[in-house]
Amino acid sequence: MNIAVISIGNEVVKGRTVDSNSAEISSFLTSNGFNVTYHVSCKDETDEICKSLMFLLEEVDVIITTGGLGPTMDDISIESISKCLRLPLEMNAQALDILKTKYLSLKLELTEERLKMAKMPLGAEIIENKSGTAPGMFLKYDGKMIFSVPGVPREMRSMLPQILLNMGVSKKAYMSKEIRVNGIMESAIAPLIKEVFDVMNNGINIKSHPESFEFNNPVLIIEFYGYGDSQDDIENRINSTYKEFSQRVKNKFSVSI
Amino acid sequence: MNIAVISIGNEVVKGRTVDSNSAEISSFLTSNGFNVTYHVSCKDETDEICKSLMFLLEEVDVIITTGGLGPTMDDISIESISKCLRLPLEMNAQALDILKTKYLSLKLELTEERLKMAKMPLGAEIIENKSGTAPGMFLKYDGKMIFSVPGVPREMRSMLPQILLNMGVSKKAYMSKEIRVNGIMESAIAPLIKEVFDVMNNGINIKSHPESFEFNNPVLIIEFYGYGDSQDDIENRINSTYKEFSQRVKNKFSVSI
Repeated sequence: MNIAVISIGNEVVKGRTVDSNSAEISSFLTSNGFNVTYHVSCKDETDEICKSLMFLLEEVDVIITTGGLGPTMDDISIESISKCLRLPLEMNAQALDILKTKYLSLKLELTEERLKMAKMPLGAEIIENKSGTAPGMFLKYDGKMIFSVPGVPREMRSMLPQILLNMGVSKKAYMSKEIRVNGIMESAIAPLIKEVFDVMNNGINIKSHPESFEFNNPVLIIEFYGYGDSQDDIENRINSTYKEFSQRVKNKFSVSI
Repeated sequence: MNIAVISIGNEVVKGRTVDSNSAEISSFLTSNGFNVTYHVSCKDETDEICKSLMFLLEEVDVIITTGGLGPTMDDISIESISKCLRLPLEMNAQALDILKTKYLSLKLELTEERLKMAKMPLGAEIIENKSGTAPGMFLKYDGKMIFSVPGVPREMRSMLPQILLNMGVSKKAYMSKEIRVNGIMESAIAPLIKEVFDVMNNGINIKSHPESFEFNNPVLIIEFYGYGDSQDDIENRINSTYKEFSQRVKNKFSVSI
């Protein structure tokens, strides 16, 4: 099951806001054994949202959009998804109930801007927003799943358990282990990484993340990660890969890690 | 001239690393008067890199990729771009000279992994890496521009002036002004934002970024931004929009901003 995240907002694409949402959603799903393959960010424009959606519907099974669910005129994510998929936009009874409860209890009118947040494509279910106002959306479309959650990180975060519940339990377990290596250039350790990867041939990825300069006291984070049929399975494969790697580093560079 | 950024790396899509590079590149280009419309992140896989590239080549004039230029086996961005565009990969003489100078001065061998960083698609120019080792790439393709820069933020950053030089001066000036509004709900200010946007009708975007809860002491950042034919032009339009907005806020909510 491949997953993509679409982060919608002018503030993201023009670089005002660093898109931590896509990372947080992906990290959460990866650690739960799922495979995220793409992130896309686009403006609050129906055309761009639709093009992103159509591109990703070709590539993945689950799409999670974040951003653009609020009451302002540029919050058009759900309306755009409806248009793009040619699904009628309708007032969702459950969402309306929630908004009524929230605003009317404060004696606030249900204005057009507030009601907008209850409009969902035909067939959508809502995801309750326990940390804010705009409800999230869950839609099954053409054998795929589309989720829309707010862009406010706290609200997005509060909906992740509900997304997971709808996706079901992954049959895979994920694990990552990182170590720090000092004093070896990335270009010097590169052939060793390839050697270990080829020798082990066990599906464990080995990635070097440079933390410092190639020359003059290089510092690398070496990451071992992958998916397994169980936690034990992935743990064993990562540990044996790490052991092989550290032995070869010791032999070649006369340093222990 | 529309621009997209592709951030390449498993660590980005699986959420290990927050993609601050795309934001930094976009912020730099936006403040220089350019229009960034998409970010895409994908894995270090030729197929995914190619699909991202083909999607964006349909949509934008300039593509900047970041990540995957180093010496390890998973650094395959430039090789993937070559394959995707069916351009032969060749040893770039200028890049080779730079690597020779860097490694041979330290009496280090030019291994296969190090030489890999000098391979570029036919017709590519290199962008010198003043802060690291792997050269960047600049390629003209089908009337469009493709830049590839490293994923290490310091190295990416050092190449931004060279990207700008190749893109030329934008005919537009960009400006953004932000103010903080306390105690007004986003759903309450939403119709006022639309009113001001419609009345002014001057191309200035007005966005509300919630910093806090809708209920209980809401805090909003209101952002006014847009492009103009000159710095004076955009400044005047933003200031008149801000003035109209603050006057209406004062009238409606009896608060000054």
